[in-house]
Amino acid sequence: MQITAQQIAHIVNGSIIGNPEIPITGPSKIEEGTKGTITFLANPKYKDYLYTTEASIVLISSDFIPEDPVLPTLIVVGNVYQALAILMEKFNSGISLLSGIAPTAVVASSAEIGENTSIDDLVIIKPGVKIGTHSKVYGQVFIGDNVTIGNHVTLFPGVKIYHNCVIGDRCIIHANTVIGSDGFGFARDEEGNYKKIPQTGNVVLENDVEVGSNTVIDRASMGSTVIKSGAKLDNLIQIAHNVSIGNHTAIAAQTGVAGSVSIGSSCIIGGQVGIAGHLSIADGTMIQAQSGISSTIKGPNAKLYGSPAIDYQNYLKSYAYFRKFPDIVQQLRHLQSTMDKLSQNNK
Amino acid sequence: MQITAQQIAHIVNGSIIGNPEIPITGPSKIEEGTKGTITFLANPKYKDYLYTTEASIVLISSDFIPEDPVLPTLIVVGNVYQALAILMEKFNSGISLLSGIAPTAVVASSAEIGENTSIDDLVIIKPGVKIGTHSKVYGQVFIGDNVTIGNHVTLFPGVKIYHNCVIGDRCIIHANTVIGSDGFGFARDEEGNYKKIPQTGNVVLENDVEVGSNTVIDRASMGSTVIKSGAKLDNLIQIAHNVSIGNHTAIAAQTGVAGSVSIGSSCIIGGQVGIAGHLSIADGTMIQAQSGISSTIKGPNAKLYGSPAIDYQNYLKSYAYFRKFPDIVQQLRHLQSTMDKLSQNNK
Amino acid sequence: MQITAQQIAHIVNGSIIGNPEIPITGPSKIEEGTKGTITFLANPKYKDYLYTTEASIVLISSDFIPEDPVLPTLIVVGNVYQALAILMEKFNSGISLLSGIAPTAVVASSAEIGENTSIDDLVIIKPGVKIGTHSKVYGQVFIGDNVTIGNHVTLFPGVKIYHNCVIGDRCIIHANTVIGSDGFGFARDEEGNYKKIPQTGNVVLENDVEVGSNTVIDRASMGSTVIKSGAKLDNLIQIAHNVSIGNHTAIAAQTGVAGSVSIGSSCIIGGQVGIAGHLSIADGTMIQAQSGISSTIKGPNAKLYGSPAIDYQNYLKSYAYFRKFPDIVQQLRHLQSTMDKLSQNNK
Repeated sequence: MQITAQQIAHIVNGSIIGNPEIPITGPSKIEEGTKGTITFLANPKYKDYLYTTEASIVLISSDFIPEDPVLPTLIVVGNVYQALAILMEKFNSGISLLSGIAPTAVVASSAEIGENTSIDDLVIIKPGVKIGTHSKVYGQVFIGDNVTIGNHVTLFPGVKIYHNCVIGDRCIIHANTVIGSDGFGFARDEEGNYKKIPQTGNVVLENDVEVGSNTVIDRASMGSTVIKSGAKLDNLIQIAHNVSIGNHTAIAAQTGVAGSVSIGSSCIIGGQVGIAGHLSIADGTMIQAQSGISSTIKGPNAKLYGSPAIDYQNYLKSYAYFRKFPDIVQQLRHLQSTMDKLSQNNK
Repeated sequence: MQITAQQIAHIVNGSIIGNPEIPITGPSKIEEGTKGTITFLANPKYKDYLYTTEASIVLISSDFIPEDPVLPTLIVVGNVYQALAILMEKFNSGISLLSGIAPTAVVASSAEIGENTSIDDLVIIKPGVKIGTHSKVYGQVFIGDNVTIGNHVTLFPGVKIYHNCVIGDRCIIHANTVIGSDGFGFARDEEGNYKKIPQTGNVVLENDVEVGSNTVIDRASMGSTVIKSGAKLDNLIQIAHNVSIGNHTAIAAQTGVAGSVSIGSSCIIGGQVGIAGHLSIADGTMIQAQSGISSTIKGPNAKLYGSPAIDYQNYLKSYAYFRKFPDIVQQLRHLQSTMDKLSQNNK
Repeated sequence: MQITAQQIAHIVNGSIIGNPEIPITGPSKIEEGTKGTITFLANPKYKDYLYTTEASIVLISSDFIPEDPVLPTLIVVGNVYQALAILMEKFNSGISLLSGIAPTAVVASSAEIGENTSIDDLVIIKPGVKIGTHSKVYGQVFIGDNVTIGNHVTLFPGVKIYHNCVIGDRCIIHANTVIGSDGFGFARDEEGNYKKIPQTGNVVLENDVEVGSNTVIDRASMGSTVIKSGAKLDNLIQIAHNVSIGNHTAIAAQTGVAGSVSIGSSCIIGGQVGIAGHLSIADGTMIQAQSGISSTIKGPNAKLYGSPAIDYQNYLKSYAYFRKFPDIVQQLRHLQSTMDKLSQNNK
């Protein structure tokens, strides 16, 4: 695909400084930019590359004033990341998929598949499944009985969805992720043996949820595990039974959320965070990577760090002293010996 | 499915207080209970809901004496969780599976499949595999050469089992879990290049083992990686080569156990725990989530926390001071300056 | 397979002490050695087993001088682990695979499959894929459009590779691992909603890379996520978009590497480590399990521990004091009270 600066400016609603006729064929990073590519400058940290990049076009913010002459054509926009997102959609080829239902897919006769939805090879769709329109179900996906899937949904290869789960419109689920497997629930009997507590609930993904690869979202023991509209989950995340995750909350890779936790909206949770069972996390909470949350967070917009997590700044202060712990103990010992002498002298 | 209080009392061996004819169609949580559902009260923390729930029936313990009048019909049992487990099995529909071998499954002619075992669509079963009776193998499972699988086993969609592994009776393995992939074993040669050490052993799951989704249990380099009877593993767990896990030990999600570790029986291991290679963990050890175990645990029933982990209570005490570290250093500095003055005065 | 000490000595270029005609049929660990097996002594910690093992043959290092008489036949080599690796290759049976393309595989007509490459049942190969010679693609693998795969590559069951990725020669990828799923990139719009930033790059695995099971390597937003030659990745690892991992770097299970991190060559990174985005890690860095790296590591061969990580030895020292924190505070309080008395007396 070839596209000119003028065409791009039109798409992203930007203004051009330079040659409107210059063509590009794909995106690049500013530090790796080559002729015939478009790049962008969003983080001021990278601003020196603006004067050296070989990219043909650079997207920049209207806030940014170049200090030196610039070689590439500039396209000036209000929000660089947003313009970039719109533009990159144009270059996004994806995995090919024929229209309709592939002959090697195994689709139950009672399943309902909407118009313009494609079912790739070797997919299994069990009885009672309903899939909306304009959805893409890639190869080797498994959809259990009575699952309901909305419109414009993408399920990447190998996704497994257990029975009775619900997937909203425009959701994207990446490869080999599992939705609706049994929660980890057991009762110990008199002999100390674990007896399985059947997990009779389901998982509900509302609209516009994206889930990465190899993530697991367990079904509720009763009721639903719910991921609310606009939430984004990265790869290799564990969501236990009966968890609720709020609108527009983003969770980075390898984080684990234990059973019955309720997370608010617009939270930002780093990677490898652990959240203990039955807690509530207020709206707008930010949790630093690798933290462990062991108590309910009541006030909104807290910033937390540590295991167990405390206020972010306080953790950094305490940790700074932790690093100097040998010196601190040394000082204490010295003080003690001075004191011992003083005490002796004062006797 | 509709069932009355009387029928339920019969199933769970309980006694009824209230209307024995009242019908329900499914379970609910006590705080979300609606008419026509059965709920339960096991954790006293939830006891206030007993007086407000709209559920038609509540399972309660014979130890529990209501303080106020109760609207729902009560079914009184010795162990609420156990009664609940029995009851919920009744409501557990699961994913449908036709009897016999699906026509799209690829089953080697030398494989032996027991009576009443179902093989779903698009399953691959390699030569020499033996599967017992009454087992369920869901779609897109892969079973490598000479794997032996017992009776009443359930393999959920996408499970992959490498050659020569052994799965005992009544085991349950959830979607996309991998059993028997190569252990992470390499020898560095003179030039610093890694040379793969072939992993010639296997994985043995004894009876009644349950493994969650997207978990990995690596085959032994020699001999067997063993998960003993009744052990329960959650999602996204890493079990390295030559590990042994004892009877009735439960491990929460995202925990990693390094090579050749031996874990005792009836241990309870939290989520995101890491256990370093070649260690032994005594029977009944409890390990707090996110802890790191870096030395052998000899005495049974220890409770551990931290990275590296120490006694649970001691960790909490030390961490309480860690939180106050700035104040402690402040006090030390103040003491130092008082001392400096005193020393000067005493000269 | 049966093989004699003499044949083994020839294969591993070793010399025999004992009976050259003694036969074995497989490997064993020295503490579990039985008649008819070969074992090895590499770690001096296990040397006492040399005098008690029932194995028929033991591989030992030319550096090792037995202190007591030894019953098994010994084969003396320069590097025990290397000899073992060569030998175990002989005992490594693996999963069977017929030659050619299985009839149930779905292979696009435009795909090019090299000589002596086997495609197992129920594999999906999309248009434009190129696979070299002598490669093995096991059941239920998915290979997206225009993926290029080298010679002597092994893809285990259920691996999913998104479009445009590149896999070098002799790479091994274990079951259910995902290569090339979208990086976790979103731009927030004015209403706080996340808008997906298309991920238009790819993943490049150079030669001799091994990747464990259920690992995820995300495609670059632009350009490539690169795993360089000889790097080894364990199970359940998260590699975010635009990461670069150097030659012969080994990463243990459940480690997560955030976006745009650049890791040098010959690093050794423990399990459950987290590395924050946009950092550089120098060649030869060793990172202890569960550590968190929050700043660039400039000097080579550093050894790090903690979250955030500091020098390994310093962390251990500080942590030793952390464990004694209650005693240290006790001492401080005692000193304070002595001081208070002294100050009073000096008034």
